[in-house]
Amino acid sequence: MLYEISEKAIQLEKQGKDIIKFNLGDPDLPTPPEIIEAAYEAMQMGMTKYSSAAGEKELREKLAEIHGVLSDNVVITTGSKWAVFSAMFLLLKGGENIVVPSPHWTSYELAAKKIGVETRFLRSDLESNWRIDVEKLEALIDENTRIIIINSPSNPTSKVVDDKIFSEIVQIATEKGVTVMADEIYSDISFVKTKSILDYNGNHIMISGFSKTFLMTGWRIGYAVVEKELAQKMIKLNQITTTCVPAFIQYGALKGLESRKRIANDIRRTFKIRADTACKLLSNTNMQFSYPDAPFYLFPKVKGLDSEQFALNLLDKGVAIAPGTAFGDFREYFRIALTVSEDKIKEGLEKICEALP
Amino acid sequence: MLYEISEKAIQLEKQGKDIIKFNLGDPDLPTPPEIIEAAYEAMQMGMTKYSSAAGEKELREKLAEIHGVLSDNVVITTGSKWAVFSAMFLLLKGGENIVVPSPHWTSYELAAKKIGVETRFLRSDLESNWRIDVEKLEALIDENTRIIIINSPSNPTSKVVDDKIFSEIVQIATEKGVTVMADEIYSDISFVKTKSILDYNGNHIMISGFSKTFLMTGWRIGYAVVEKELAQKMIKLNQITTTCVPAFIQYGALKGLESRKRIANDIRRTFKIRADTACKLLSNTNMQFSYPDAPFYLFPKVKGLDSEQFALNLLDKGVAIAPGTAFGDFREYFRIALTVSEDKIKEGLEKICEALP
Repeated sequence: MLYEISEKAIQLEKQGKDIIKFNLGDPDLPTPPEIIEAAYEAMQMGMTKYSSAAGEKELREKLAEIHGVLSDNVVITTGSKWAVFSAMFLLLKGGENIVVPSPHWTSYELAAKKIGVETRFLRSDLESNWRIDVEKLEALIDENTRIIIINSPSNPTSKVVDDKIFSEIVQIATEKGVTVMADEIYSDISFVKTKSILDYNGNHIMISGFSKTFLMTGWRIGYAVVEKELAQKMIKLNQITTTCVPAFIQYGALKGLESRKRIANDIRRTFKIRADTACKLLSNTNMQFSYPDAPFYLFPKVKGLDSEQFALNLLDKGVAIAPGTAFGDFREYFRIALTVSEDKIKEGLEKICEALP
Repeated sequence: MLYEISEKAIQLEKQGKDIIKFNLGDPDLPTPPEIIEAAYEAMQMGMTKYSSAAGEKELREKLAEIHGVLSDNVVITTGSKWAVFSAMFLLLKGGENIVVPSPHWTSYELAAKKIGVETRFLRSDLESNWRIDVEKLEALIDENTRIIIINSPSNPTSKVVDDKIFSEIVQIATEKGVTVMADEIYSDISFVKTKSILDYNGNHIMISGFSKTFLMTGWRIGYAVVEKELAQKMIKLNQITTTCVPAFIQYGALKGLESRKRIANDIRRTFKIRADTACKLLSNTNMQFSYPDAPFYLFPKVKGLDSEQFALNLLDKGVAIAPGTAFGDFREYFRIALTVSEDKIKEGLEKICEALP
């Protein structure tokens, strides 16, 4: 229902309606101007032709340097979502399964379903501060399990998996011959320190991208850091599907990397203030929630709520949220993306409070 | 081997080598400046956010108007290649097959293979001017055939399927309940009139894009015109894979559509002159070939040639071509894309003649 809400919100906006869009992880802040200028310059220089399906050499090398890997391990993709989908498409076959801590980002489950693979959910709870239960995780793994997904910081909870648990998950995966796919798209802007799958040995998969850290959501540029054999397969799949990420977009992203720390700090600061504001307001309501470790989300709970019906009602009142059911079996929850100004956050949260049953 | 040659040519260029790139359908002409400016303007206006997985409303409506369909039938895709792959991925399952006239564009076969589907090739010959034999085509169809691909004008032969044969193929497909997927990416710049699958009733698939007509190869924007149900499925697949084509790219493309006829005429004129030049030069050699009906390709034959070995040798001499084996069982053939200046065409063809065994 996440995408239905999103498309409906876009339609309402086209009709001239004002929508407070809490529904998407799409920050209101503009792409930094130096990235736009670099992309424009690259277009003018003729970087408008087919380019390498692996990604531009300079960008791969820069990312390799940042992550302490070889450029052969880096594949530039049409958004981090394509990196997730293509790795799953290449590694999985019918009858196999993946294990996903839940609540979870919708696309993991939908991609698995599309590929004909079972998703086994490991439920976590607000009451235990969204802690992953490693014993339960281990119990879900069988001989057909190929991938465990770790999404830390998490969409929708914005919680970071603690170091010990992260290590335990990787250890279990390694012992059982299962690949960890770590979606680290929110890591660079996290409020707290985060582990990376690249801190560990083994043929695991790191997924990241430019959408969140560089405010480039609509540019569709992400990447995977993987072992060379899988990198080659992903490049070959790019060749027969997306071809390449436009080279001028890659040069925009490369420009962004030059100011990586500054841009990430700015985002972190802005979203920390917003998170504080929102949490303060939520504290005075009957909503239960956990303080976020990272941008952009809050995932509050209202006992007895039907969040799907609530999301539809709320859209008519000019506020778009994502119902908890979009992230698993979490009907009493909804996701608020703090990707609007502080004033809009206040206005939107007031409308939510008014509309609550 | 097409993509291997391409990646190797890019590497050689990065090393400072001069390569005459006859290997890719990637015109040397720059993207028209008004498209670049429109994209830049859209970036500055903030069209850098997530947008609809179906494509921008204005672009879909404009394309619907051009093709005489509803905007609900138009899906904007990350290049026409993604339109081909995603439609095949959605319509086909293991054990089924597709029928493809050959020589054929590499990606059809590779996509089918990746999806676990058999490709049945209908061989045509230079000697019969690459005419599709409809009786043979019919004989290839069985109860597991789901798609027949028509690529007219064709890559690699640049031949247009004549009207009568086009109609006969569609009739057979309709009778047998098989979908025609017509890849019409070269239609708008064809030297001769071409049929479109949209001239016929039935739930067929039209694939096109901006790469060739608008000199936007590296921008990755294409589209499919399909019945509404398939459109909805393709949009849903976009949501979990590519997300959307960057909105600023779509506004660049929309700008291009305003000058559609002028831009297409310019390309047609340029490539007609190049085709004349090249054919004149080839006439004086022992190469056999058919005069192209459209940009960008010649597909000459040299009796006894091993085109793979020849392509590798030639690359060392600074000319990149695509061996015929990249387009099916055509070892004695190779593809020349006339996507370089007339001077380079002359120089490249001379080098080819010198290098021929």
